[in-house]
Amino acid sequence: MRIGVDIGGTKVAAGLVDATGAITQKVRVSMVSAGTAAAGFGAVSSAIEAIFAAAPEARAAVTGIGLCSPGPLDPKRGVVINPPNLPCWRGFPLAAEVERAFGVPARVDNDANAAGLAEVLWGSGQGNASVFYATLGTGIGAGIIFDRKIYHGRTGSAAEGGHVTVDYRGPRCGCGKFGCIEALASGPAIARLAQGKLAGGASSRIVELAGTLDAVRAEHVGQAFGEGDAVAKEVLDEIALLLTVWFGNIVDLLEPDCIVVGGGVAAMMSPYFEHISATLPKWSINQRAAEIPLVMARYGADAGIAGAAALCE
Amino acid sequence: MRIGVDIGGTKVAAGLVDATGAITQKVRVSMVSAGTAAAGFGAVSSAIEAIFAAAPEARAAVTGIGLCSPGPLDPKRGVVINPPNLPCWRGFPLAAEVERAFGVPARVDNDANAAGLAEVLWGSGQGNASVFYATLGTGIGAGIIFDRKIYHGRTGSAAEGGHVTVDYRGPRCGCGKFGCIEALASGPAIARLAQGKLAGGASSRIVELAGTLDAVRAEHVGQAFGEGDAVAKEVLDEIALLLTVWFGNIVDLLEPDCIVVGGGVAAMMSPYFEHISATLPKWSINQRAAEIPLVMARYGADAGIAGAAALCE
Repeated sequence: MRIGVDIGGTKVAAGLVDATGAITQKVRVSMVSAGTAAAGFGAVSSAIEAIFAAAPEARAAVTGIGLCSPGPLDPKRGVVINPPNLPCWRGFPLAAEVERAFGVPARVDNDANAAGLAEVLWGSGQGNASVFYATLGTGIGAGIIFDRKIYHGRTGSAAEGGHVTVDYRGPRCGCGKFGCIEALASGPAIARLAQGKLAGGASSRIVELAGTLDAVRAEHVGQAFGEGDAVAKEVLDEIALLLTVWFGNIVDLLEPDCIVVGGGVAAMMSPYFEHISATLPKWSINQRAAEIPLVMARYGADAGIAGAAALCE
Repeated sequence: MRIGVDIGGTKVAAGLVDATGAITQKVRVSMVSAGTAAAGFGAVSSAIEAIFAAAPEARAAVTGIGLCSPGPLDPKRGVVINPPNLPCWRGFPLAAEVERAFGVPARVDNDANAAGLAEVLWGSGQGNASVFYATLGTGIGAGIIFDRKIYHGRTGSAAEGGHVTVDYRGPRCGCGKFGCIEALASGPAIARLAQGKLAGGASSRIVELAGTLDAVRAEHVGQAFGEGDAVAKEVLDEIALLLTVWFGNIVDLLEPDCIVVGGGVAAMMSPYFEHISATLPKWSINQRAAEIPLVMARYGADAGIAGAAALCE
């Protein structure tokens, strides 16, 4: 039994996770991200204490506490370096502080790395040694698992899969690069693509659902697609192509055993998974690219909790 | 002491390689690629025998024979599957045949994987655990070394780094994909880029060196660049940008300890290495991308021999 703690800029979610990866308790508290380091740590502690309060037997049974934190961070030392949305922590030894406060081993990693590990240990990637995991939503995060372990790279900054450029003359990404898959196929990119197609005033269920063109979000495109809207289909066809190009790059570099995707955009795109797999050989030099399973993640909103807990395995 | 054998569609090169990676003997014979499997193997055997003839002490001292073969191949079983330019071999158990004929362990891999390993063991990547190796020439090949071992992926087809798409709306690559770095920055792509710029009839040292516009090759662009030609600089500036975009993708996915590049185009581009490293942070989300060394390979034309020998370490 282990505790997984998912730390964000505004909230801390913690959960008790059993040996099968099931989350048996779950709490959520506000994060204190802009105060002192101690105040930020206090929020984390209170989430862990709330788990113990809800499940008193856990206090003796928990064998480790894993934590996902915004990066950059050093997963080897468990130190949070200087996340833009956690100004409270600068070079903060999060793992060591948790170990001191709770007396069990603690591990720290970023959410996508951790979620990828949880999918391999307990979720849709089970039975595979090497998995490319991606979470497709407002942003695109990724985790690379080799031999059932997180691949970190030189300083812990590997697996930034959302920032692979597939169109170097394309639109600028929030990260500063151009034509990253995140800039082209994340939720906001889907909304922008739909808005562009509808700017001429064409009628579409997308705008009906959103109210106004400005209010269009990826969810509206997804819902309109489900209702058979032609513009929504045009948009998601383009997103499917972009994801295929991106997966083709991943397969050509890493040839993973399996690709696991989670997040709202992944769910929206799941009707395309078969098509993406079938067309992957056009965008990969790998003659056997279509054999690589492309599957939906087990964990949705709880991916951070499950992932954090997986760090303790 | 080990023997490295580099098998191509038209020739077989073999060498005797010592514990420091130095090649102390070298032979070259014609490959018989279109006959029977036995005839093809005969060419390989004769190259190995020629090494023993030149260095009789090697027959007792050699502890392994490594072989690079065109792919696809199965490096785990040492089987050559069905290379287009080696029609003699279909499912040919090359490693087993070499072991039977010469009585020492044999290993088979593709040339770029093997050359990457040689750079880590004996060359410019020494001291690093995780290295991205690329050979830039008529094509662009790559090898990924993690923990001082070749990373193969699911079936041995990982590390096709030359076929990472950075411009999915770009020109078609020989592999069928669009906008692969090989289609944009290999030797032939450099020649095409120069020809395009010179098609209007502008005067340039490039055409003087080549004789005619049609005869322009990458080497002429490189030589003209060295002589200060403005069009050649324009071309290589663009190639440097493309390589930076590509390395940015590699760093964001793999964050290697070091990037080692070999081949004619790499040599031609070496005056740009410092610039590429300095601008890498623009094309990587990694705040420390510029720290990753970008270095020329130790091995040039002998990379296949050294790489094959490295497989026996």
